[in-house]
Amino acid sequence: MPKPKESIWKRRLHEIIYEADTPMGKLFDIVLLILILLSVILVMVESVKGQPDWVYDYLYYGEWVITIFFTFEYIARIITVKKPSSYIFSFYGVIDFLSTIPLYLSFILVGSNYLLTVRALRLLRVFRILKVTRYIGEANKLGKALNDSRPKILVFLFAVLIVAILAGTLMYLVEGEESGFKSIPASVYWSIVTLTTVGFGDIAPVKPLGQFIAAVLMIMGYGIIAVPTGIVSAEYARSTGKKPDLDSDQYVHVNSQACRNCGASRHRDDAEFCHKCGNNLHPEDIVPNAD
Amino acid sequence: MPKPKESIWKRRLHEIIYEADTPMGKLFDIVLLILILLSVILVMVESVKGQPDWVYDYLYYGEWVITIFFTFEYIARIITVKKPSSYIFSFYGVIDFLSTIPLYLSFILVGSNYLLTVRALRLLRVFRILKVTRYIGEANKLGKALNDSRPKILVFLFAVLIVAILAGTLMYLVEGEESGFKSIPASVYWSIVTLTTVGFGDIAPVKPLGQFIAAVLMIMGYGIIAVPTGIVSAEYARSTGKKPDLDSDQYVHVNSQACRNCGASRHRDDAEFCHKCGNNLHPEDIVPNAD
Amino acid sequence: MPKPKESIWKRRLHEIIYEADTPMGKLFDIVLLILILLSVILVMVESVKGQPDWVYDYLYYGEWVITIFFTFEYIARIITVKKPSSYIFSFYGVIDFLSTIPLYLSFILVGSNYLLTVRALRLLRVFRILKVTRYIGEANKLGKALNDSRPKILVFLFAVLIVAILAGTLMYLVEGEESGFKSIPASVYWSIVTLTTVGFGDIAPVKPLGQFIAAVLMIMGYGIIAVPTGIVSAEYARSTGKKPDLDSDQYVHVNSQACRNCGASRHRDDAEFCHKCGNNLHPEDIVPNAD
Amino acid sequence: MPKPKESIWKRRLHEIIYEADTPMGKLFDIVLLILILLSVILVMVESVKGQPDWVYDYLYYGEWVITIFFTFEYIARIITVKKPSSYIFSFYGVIDFLSTIPLYLSFILVGSNYLLTVRALRLLRVFRILKVTRYIGEANKLGKALNDSRPKILVFLFAVLIVAILAGTLMYLVEGEESGFKSIPASVYWSIVTLTTVGFGDIAPVKPLGQFIAAVLMIMGYGIIAVPTGIVSAEYARSTGKKPDLDSDQYVHVNSQACRNCGASRHRDDAEFCHKCGNNLHPEDIVPNAD
Repeated sequence: MPKPKESIWKRRLHEIIYEADTPMGKLFDIVLLILILLSVILVMVESVKGQPDWVYDYLYYGEWVITIFFTFEYIARIITVKKPSSYIFSFYGVIDFLSTIPLYLSFILVGSNYLLTVRALRLLRVFRILKVTRYIGEANKLGKALNDSRPKILVFLFAVLIVAILAGTLMYLVEGEESGFKSIPASVYWSIVTLTTVGFGDIAPVKPLGQFIAAVLMIMGYGIIAVPTGIVSAEYARSTGKKPDLDSDQYVHVNSQACRNCGASRHRDDAEFCHKCGNNLHPEDIVPNAD
Repeated sequence: MPKPKESIWKRRLHEIIYEADTPMGKLFDIVLLILILLSVILVMVESVKGQPDWVYDYLYYGEWVITIFFTFEYIARIITVKKPSSYIFSFYGVIDFLSTIPLYLSFILVGSNYLLTVRALRLLRVFRILKVTRYIGEANKLGKALNDSRPKILVFLFAVLIVAILAGTLMYLVEGEESGFKSIPASVYWSIVTLTTVGFGDIAPVKPLGQFIAAVLMIMGYGIIAVPTGIVSAEYARSTGKKPDLDSDQYVHVNSQACRNCGASRHRDDAEFCHKCGNNLHPEDIVPNAD
Repeated sequence: MPKPKESIWKRRLHEIIYEADTPMGKLFDIVLLILILLSVILVMVESVKGQPDWVYDYLYYGEWVITIFFTFEYIARIITVKKPSSYIFSFYGVIDFLSTIPLYLSFILVGSNYLLTVRALRLLRVFRILKVTRYIGEANKLGKALNDSRPKILVFLFAVLIVAILAGTLMYLVEGEESGFKSIPASVYWSIVTLTTVGFGDIAPVKPLGQFIAAVLMIMGYGIIAVPTGIVSAEYARSTGKKPDLDSDQYVHVNSQACRNCGASRHRDDAEFCHKCGNNLHPEDIVPNAD
Repeated sequence: MPKPKESIWKRRLHEIIYEADTPMGKLFDIVLLILILLSVILVMVESVKGQPDWVYDYLYYGEWVITIFFTFEYIARIITVKKPSSYIFSFYGVIDFLSTIPLYLSFILVGSNYLLTVRALRLLRVFRILKVTRYIGEANKLGKALNDSRPKILVFLFAVLIVAILAGTLMYLVEGEESGFKSIPASVYWSIVTLTTVGFGDIAPVKPLGQFIAAVLMIMGYGIIAVPTGIVSAEYARSTGKKPDLDSDQYVHVNSQACRNCGASRHRDDAEFCHKCGNNLHPEDIVPNAD
């Protein structure tokens, strides 16, 4: 079997699996997307007790079909990629591996429920397919806005956590075990349920003082829920809104051109001399490529 | 019966039914609005069990009055419109049809509860009447802001859904059936109840580990509730807030054209004479290129 | 008794009661504020059952003290104001009257609980006193932002209400009476509880289909809670933020001055000649009243 | 013992305790941070009932270790600071003192639960350590945004409180004791639970009229939750969003310094030569006053 022929076959397979520009590549992505969603639905349906036996039979057959497809896909991905090791240990490589093995593992770990979670992880594979769609641009903007506000949100969540711990300790003392505030961790759990306005009601204060403290906590939560919203809102508006005003009196656009004399860069777009060494930036009168 | 006479009669009816400029047209809209709201109230009252028989009698008579009015109205709409077929299969044509038939259908489908939902759909007809009010401009702005942010909100909701499925699977394993997490779908339902901060409390974690995961999930929900708000807020601000109203009475767009006589610039786009020296800005009658 | 003397006495009393610039006026406001808050606390404490008799005795004496003070104050307000009738039928006049009468009414309407609500209405009087504080500027800004967004919020709440009625009807059919969805009004109540993310949990879906519809409703509520927030946020930012930049290069302030020659208006504030006909706008060198 | 030697020893200790620039200072901060978090975890674990005795033993030993460390640290802080009295009565001085004494107090106040809250207050010490991290800048921005919106949020919360009291009184009359609305304070507590969308469900209206009022209250809460969010969002955007990032790669801060040769201004803050004519901006080596 001549080497070049195999190479073409590999390249075509690589195109189909890793790209979405060809009709075959698109078809592959759609089939994969359907199988992933199907496999998650299988997991969900399987967890519902009290169904007739034939349902479980079909679910088992379905899981086999999906596992076989994923096995072939996983092997094909390893074969067609240039550096298999970098794929195998990449994020999606690990997810692909975990998506493939649950059924094989079930022969070893008989009756283990934890394989269910592993099977649910297949859902993460959806993101790779979505990467090639038009929604990914939006997702990136969202991700950027969230990322930009991360330190602020972390500070905020940390403050919320401290309020929750202090309020939880206080409620544990005020309400005590008989009202459901069994321990400080349970009270802190209640504080978080309350501060986030979830309010399950499985634990609720019954003493007037406890209800008063709870009311204060809720109004605080109401007042501070505004903070992360305001942060993300402002960050998002900034990241998608206009660039900083070019007409502002305090800022000017700089480019990456480097001075030939001293190497300093980030000159004003209309600079004619280096701001660092005074060297003429354009001895031959070549206008720099602004922006 | 001469044709032109009928035509005038039809045109008047069309005016009354489809427009709201004439006193009769306004009266018709108000009567229709009252009947729609009344019909929905009838549906609601009818669903309340344990009332004396005469109440149900009156509700039945009321439904007949409304159905007869709607029947005549539906026929009148078909007669007076130029292309009946395009009306019949339009959104409001279908709604009008569905609003008319429940009582007739009740003779065929005896005792069917589902006619109640059909009758509640009459509420959608309210939107057509509101179209001619001043509120529709606001609704359009809102709709535009929501529409502009749709891809972002879809990406966001999709991410929320994946978090809900993964968290639901995890909670199903951790808490199990005895805590109310009966199956993965039920656990996912709980995750959505928690992430959206609704928090019914019909299902609630009881194990420390489950409460810990729930607390993390809630704080995540608290942190990410900011995202759609931030998006809509920014989109809305952009769609309505960007430019000072061109229609405002206090501001007008000016251009950079300079007066040939005195050099003053920033004239109104429609200026014909300089506001500084009174020089004719367009002696050759060349219309300036407004914006 | 000479007329002018009484007039001075009346004017002083008017100053004390209606104004807060003099020390006596400030003192009066503070005493009134304390009595109002005290009277509301009395109402609250009185509603708590199972206290010793002497508590109720003291509450009764306290109510007498407050009622006598309010009676004198109400009479003084009527005497000192120029047009008593316009005060009596104003918003605060009615509130003042209602604040005064509960105890007197209690002799006629023995045992009526509804006097409690009337007594709680005294709280509204606090707003009049707060009017003279520094917080009123902030409250006005807030009120303006809310007022500006009113039509949008009304459209939004109306849409929410229609969603709630349709979802409530659907849930009534799906879940039925045995799950707590006793009637369509009760189901609509549940829909509103869910859409607003309050989530009491007194009624909760138990069937898988009902839970699925509830999940969709919650995610919708999660997605659309952003709308009013975005609106108020943008309106507030607009109302408190800068005016459209006067320094911008593209817009200029215009006034309502009309050209005497051609009648064209909306000239630049610094215009000396009409932009439409070139007529000198200020032949007598009278500077136009800008803004 | 010579004075200077002690002074150096003190200065070194001061550096370690109060600063974080030296390796020893950083190590000290990390150890302190771990001990604080550990001490709070100890409090939490201790509150969980039903653990084996040896757990309580270890918790007791752990508390001794932490108390001894805190005692030495507190003494060291007093010794090394210049004015001990101003430290002792500062906010962190009091927190440090309260962090140290619980175990000693437990010999006097045997079995007092309230020492638990005092021990939880140790958490507040974390803020001092975080002051030296990069997150404090973010926290300051957040704090500033919250501080700027404080009067608005206070006005808002006051209005919410009045709505809660009036609605609570109304619900007390409508629902009465048998539905859980035992007294007006309890009803106000329920109003706050509802308005803030927490919705425990421990108290819930059962009468149709009560459910209707509750629905109105919830929709009001839904409509007005937008207000604090809008305020903080706008304030935050204003306080942080105005100026573009100084660290951005594309923009650089320029100052108003003018070139003595050609008069060109808006040079980079660190410019040494004019970007227009190449003239040395600082022939006398006078560093320009940046920013």
